[in-house]
Amino acid sequence: MDAKIEFISGGTVTSPKGFRAGATYAGMKEKAEDSLDLGILFSEVPCVATGVFTTNRIKAAPVVLCQQRLPASRAKAVVVNSGCANACNGGQGLADAAEMASLAARKIGVSPEEVLVASTGVIGQSLPMKLIQAGIKQVVLSNNGGHKLARAMMTTDTVPKEAAVTVNIGDGEFIIGGVAKGSGMIHPNLATMLCWLTTDAAVDIDFLKLALRKAVDTSFNMISIDGDTSPSDMVLVMANGLAGNKPIPRDSKQADAFQQALDLVCLYLAKSIARDGEGATKLIEVSVSRALSIADARLAARTIVSSPLVKAAVYGSDPNWGRIIAAVGRSGVEVVESKIDLHIGNVCLVKAGCPLPFNRGEVVNILRGSEVLISLNLNLGDATATAWGCDLSEEYVTINSQYTT
Amino acid sequence: MDAKIEFISGGTVTSPKGFRAGATYAGMKEKAEDSLDLGILFSEVPCVATGVFTTNRIKAAPVVLCQQRLPASRAKAVVVNSGCANACNGGQGLADAAEMASLAARKIGVSPEEVLVASTGVIGQSLPMKLIQAGIKQVVLSNNGGHKLARAMMTTDTVPKEAAVTVNIGDGEFIIGGVAKGSGMIHPNLATMLCWLTTDAAVDIDFLKLALRKAVDTSFNMISIDGDTSPSDMVLVMANGLAGNKPIPRDSKQADAFQQALDLVCLYLAKSIARDGEGATKLIEVSVSRALSIADARLAARTIVSSPLVKAAVYGSDPNWGRIIAAVGRSGVEVVESKIDLHIGNVCLVKAGCPLPFNRGEVVNILRGSEVLISLNLNLGDATATAWGCDLSEEYVTINSQYTT
Repeated sequence: MDAKIEFISGGTVTSPKGFRAGATYAGMKEKAEDSLDLGILFSEVPCVATGVFTTNRIKAAPVVLCQQRLPASRAKAVVVNSGCANACNGGQGLADAAEMASLAARKIGVSPEEVLVASTGVIGQSLPMKLIQAGIKQVVLSNNGGHKLARAMMTTDTVPKEAAVTVNIGDGEFIIGGVAKGSGMIHPNLATMLCWLTTDAAVDIDFLKLALRKAVDTSFNMISIDGDTSPSDMVLVMANGLAGNKPIPRDSKQADAFQQALDLVCLYLAKSIARDGEGATKLIEVSVSRALSIADARLAARTIVSSPLVKAAVYGSDPNWGRIIAAVGRSGVEVVESKIDLHIGNVCLVKAGCPLPFNRGEVVNILRGSEVLISLNLNLGDATATAWGCDLSEEYVTINSQYTT
Repeated sequence: MDAKIEFISGGTVTSPKGFRAGATYAGMKEKAEDSLDLGILFSEVPCVATGVFTTNRIKAAPVVLCQQRLPASRAKAVVVNSGCANACNGGQGLADAAEMASLAARKIGVSPEEVLVASTGVIGQSLPMKLIQAGIKQVVLSNNGGHKLARAMMTTDTVPKEAAVTVNIGDGEFIIGGVAKGSGMIHPNLATMLCWLTTDAAVDIDFLKLALRKAVDTSFNMISIDGDTSPSDMVLVMANGLAGNKPIPRDSKQADAFQQALDLVCLYLAKSIARDGEGATKLIEVSVSRALSIADARLAARTIVSSPLVKAAVYGSDPNWGRIIAAVGRSGVEVVESKIDLHIGNVCLVKAGCPLPFNRGEVVNILRGSEVLISLNLNLGDATATAWGCDLSEEYVTINSQYTT
């Protein structure tokens, strides 16, 4: 039988059994009403855990710390702050990240090595350790604390990103939940984004590593907001086994269901990030089909969705489709101009490389929607990929010309 | 003795002996007072000629035509229009480009094969051949027509870009002149930019090819406005020999002087393009030193100057230097965080990877200038490169969300 996967209404990272979370306002973010800037995610029992990290060669101290700790594949908690990225702070940054883990460990009664750390915010400022220390003491953990945690991770995000699904595999049921943040410095190969995933399924660690990599490749690695990849990015998954199943191994029926559900949660969170891009008014989905290779399809989709000119045209609801063709042309993928078909929504604008006459008003209307679908058929091979991003508005510039000031 | 190279006040592409140009308003651009959209550049005697073209796999019809004609290394004229790029128009586009060359050839009394073509403007619209035909008839060529030609090439440019230098090599003198356009879709490996260079020096064609490639690599290939490379880019050089010198060969004293002067003209024009980027308020110069290789230095400089977040911070005069470090980190070049030094203007913000305390007001003042210099020392090797770009303002988005509408 097939697995039955359903989104949980109001689901979050603490929806799986045995996970608790909480958050507080420690004083690092500028105070807005209801502001939170420090949070903890905690599993009552030890988890197998793995992560995927930024490809930026400059790595924030928390990323370095997590990469040192994760080879053990075990974790019980994550502590996170917003308002300061703890990146580019030299040795002091690493010491502060370790101290932050220790403070959280003491608070929840686990060993420091079982705590992972993440920070997001301005680069090159030291972590205000006194605020962190006082803040960690204030955090109250609860079974529905995932909602607060999601808000504590936010920087320029305008909405929290959270989701959870139940997976029924006939002889049992488990839950996968997640929270994420990210709004600027977002680009494939991770971006200023943080995501924690949790599950009460028992999962074989080797399969968990593969499954996470696969899910990230088709979700977080396919979104772009501004082409800037952050030194702080990470996606972590923790599996605590409280669902009571036998650990899910590779190449099993259960593994297929788990992968499908993990993909779904990651995709939901990734699209939430793209939709909430700084200054964004629309979600853009770019689907590239019949490319010569998966690598080509991915690169073409990502290049189009990252093009400032395409993004600005979508913002202005301007059917300036030449920019889409120009973007795929410079992407470096194999293209043959005379084979290209291009659709915006369901309207074909280019067939076999030649412009078709189109009803301008109809396409403008499509571009005015909150989700714009661009489909490019290269007619060369069998590979397909989809990428997501957002439009480029004056507001993006306003936000980013005044972020630290 | 060293060559003496001097900028000519009011110099342009028709400053070298024997070059004439002219332009008219054919009706393709929206009419603004004094608007020009069609121009011709003409040499009274045959020239050796070569060009460098877009790396975009989608090539506009004029690019294809020039690439077919230039292996002959000879040309007498270039005809150019703005308002329509003649790109993505299939076979009709190629036929129209050839017809445009033929019309210009008939007008000036040369053979069609001696005429090169360029078009810039909206992609995917057919060339209005009736307007082109009527316009070409109206063009009046003159010895100082370069100024008009520079204006006829403009799209969203706010100022024409032109320059010329005299080169005195002791036993003789020659002139190199040039005009360029470009303001958006500008990125290394050529961008929506057109540039014609002329000289009355006699130049050996093999050396001319090398010299152009070298000059372009350190000028036009080191500017970025928005990361989008256009299908229409080209740089052409025509040398007519009317200065009366013996053709300049490779590896000669004269070749050094010619290269130096060509570099100077290209750099001047390239910086003019960067400074006039769509919506730009400032020129940004990024200098990367002590990289492991020239390729690394170039990539690092180009990545920083292209980063939307760096550009937005400069626009807001915000000393958010972490974005510079993050950009070099994601660029893919070899970096060791603990070795990086970073200056904005003459203020050191990062030394050996650690933030230094700095006078915020002083750095804000530097960032408020019309030219902002960012210097990054990687302290790893001996290679250096410089790239130029502009800041990112709300105006860029406004321009590009409404370009075809």
